[in-house]
Amino acid sequence: MRSLPTYQDILAAAYRLEGHAHRTPVLRSATADARWGAQFFFKCENFQRTGAFKFRGAFNALAKFDAAQRSAGAIAFSSGNHAQAVALAARLLAMPALIVMPQDAPAAKLAATRGYDAEVVLYDRFTEDRVALAQRLAAERGMTLIPPYDHPDVIAGQGTAVKELMEETGPLDRLYVCLGGGGLTSGSALAARALAPQCQVYGVEPEAGNDGQQSLRAGHIVHIATPKTIADGAQTQHLGAYTFAIIQRDVTGILTVSDAQLIEAMRFFAERMKMVVEPTGCLAFAAACAASEASEAERAMQGVRVGVIVSGGNVDMARYAELLAAC
Amino acid sequence: MRSLPTYQDILAAAYRLEGHAHRTPVLRSATADARWGAQFFFKCENFQRTGAFKFRGAFNALAKFDAAQRSAGAIAFSSGNHAQAVALAARLLAMPALIVMPQDAPAAKLAATRGYDAEVVLYDRFTEDRVALAQRLAAERGMTLIPPYDHPDVIAGQGTAVKELMEETGPLDRLYVCLGGGGLTSGSALAARALAPQCQVYGVEPEAGNDGQQSLRAGHIVHIATPKTIADGAQTQHLGAYTFAIIQRDVTGILTVSDAQLIEAMRFFAERMKMVVEPTGCLAFAAACAASEASEAERAMQGVRVGVIVSGGNVDMARYAELLAAC
Repeated sequence: MRSLPTYQDILAAAYRLEGHAHRTPVLRSATADARWGAQFFFKCENFQRTGAFKFRGAFNALAKFDAAQRSAGAIAFSSGNHAQAVALAARLLAMPALIVMPQDAPAAKLAATRGYDAEVVLYDRFTEDRVALAQRLAAERGMTLIPPYDHPDVIAGQGTAVKELMEETGPLDRLYVCLGGGGLTSGSALAARALAPQCQVYGVEPEAGNDGQQSLRAGHIVHIATPKTIADGAQTQHLGAYTFAIIQRDVTGILTVSDAQLIEAMRFFAERMKMVVEPTGCLAFAAACAASEASEAERAMQGVRVGVIVSGGNVDMARYAELLAAC
Repeated sequence: MRSLPTYQDILAAAYRLEGHAHRTPVLRSATADARWGAQFFFKCENFQRTGAFKFRGAFNALAKFDAAQRSAGAIAFSSGNHAQAVALAARLLAMPALIVMPQDAPAAKLAATRGYDAEVVLYDRFTEDRVALAQRLAAERGMTLIPPYDHPDVIAGQGTAVKELMEETGPLDRLYVCLGGGGLTSGSALAARALAPQCQVYGVEPEAGNDGQQSLRAGHIVHIATPKTIADGAQTQHLGAYTFAIIQRDVTGILTVSDAQLIEAMRFFAERMKMVVEPTGCLAFAAACAASEASEAERAMQGVRVGVIVSGGNVDMARYAELLAAC
């Protein structure tokens, strides 16, 4: 294990990302402020390249490859946003990419990943181990495996979103971040600690998959079965060694929200803020709203400056239409 | 009739709007650039306050009221974005607002307008004339009537969006703007003429309601019956005296697109750019795509720097879900 990444690594990542990642907008909503009492600042990573923050970490990791690594290329296993992030980063850096994806992945996701010129290797989710397969392919081809979250360079890359946010807003009082494997949460916490030492940082998980919360309580990484939730980006079974160490040290607490709360937040984003946000991207805001509602009597959120990371917007349109219409 | 507004009026409007209107983001899309060959710059007025550019014109007009006008307040007739724009502008400027709306307007729109503290007076679309009613109420109460588009201060306010856009992008080669009554198109054309004299400016109407196109051809304002189109913000029957004069002088041409093209653009915005855009807000981009497709053989759009005004995002969620799902 390398040493834990620091804010210096985030600064270096920001330098690498300059001109490659979008500096995404920070949006406000007078309606949200009026309804929940806080001053919300939404960092909109749904407008990031590939539609999610994942591009930041992937690009940072690949940009650090040496000449031999570059010529062999990058490999990743993912059926989600990390796949496209590695594929696009590799294309921009002119190196080969191989993505291991389940053979029953949605056609749109396969097409999107191939659209970024990545080679896709399919596996059977029921009979094959994707990690073993990816490691074997990496060894055979000399490619470098980039895990979706538990990697210092990935964490440092993800941390650049909060760096940009706080450069624009100044120090915030609270920060809500979605929590799956912990790459975004740990990177965000590192940035917040450096830029706003008093800021309370919350990771937010789906109720059905609170392995992070359990891990903090237990003091070690707790593994769970793949949780059933619409937040498909947070269906992770456990935190990583790097992400857990940082979260344990730098995060104020871990909160959970239900799928129903995610759908409500998703609808608010669409109707009032005109943004398409995937279910996982709604975790942070749903928790912030719940915190405000729970503390209404004391008006504890009144005037509090709250950062909300809107992590991504990749959702199948038919599914999205269904979720909007159901409300 | 007052004299036509000029770019100086847009500069003055920008000064008045500072700190009140959002400076909306200019988004890019690598996917759009790759697919249609141009370099697109999307000015996202769907993220403007009240969800549409209309706030700019309304606020500018109301901010120019003298003391007597302020104390009596503003009146408007609209079932759409102008209603909410005048209501919010009045509230921010601490003056009364009265909005004349059809009694069968969607409950959500009535609630939104009242939510901005405006008084709402309902009328029967089938038996009453809303203009006469608004004029009578204005006279009775000494209120100032602010029309939705044909007013120099409204036009100047709408022009601030393109001023902001070109400040960020530098001079553009082409600009596509949705065209209803012509407030946004004429304001945009004024700004473009000042900031990028070589820029080609296109107004875009729904196929079903091409009164602007007919008017340019005829050399006078042509009136049509209320067109049947999903672009409800462009269901105007005719241009105004101010807007027509500016459009005739400063606009390169007027294009039309079908409802099917609007739905395609709406879906692209949702799926690839993660934005909720109302049908009217899709007019400009739909026309830009069509222009690129029509000229593919000559690759006439290759590398052309194209500004697209995304005018608003106010669409009923059930309806929106339906339009997305239909694709």
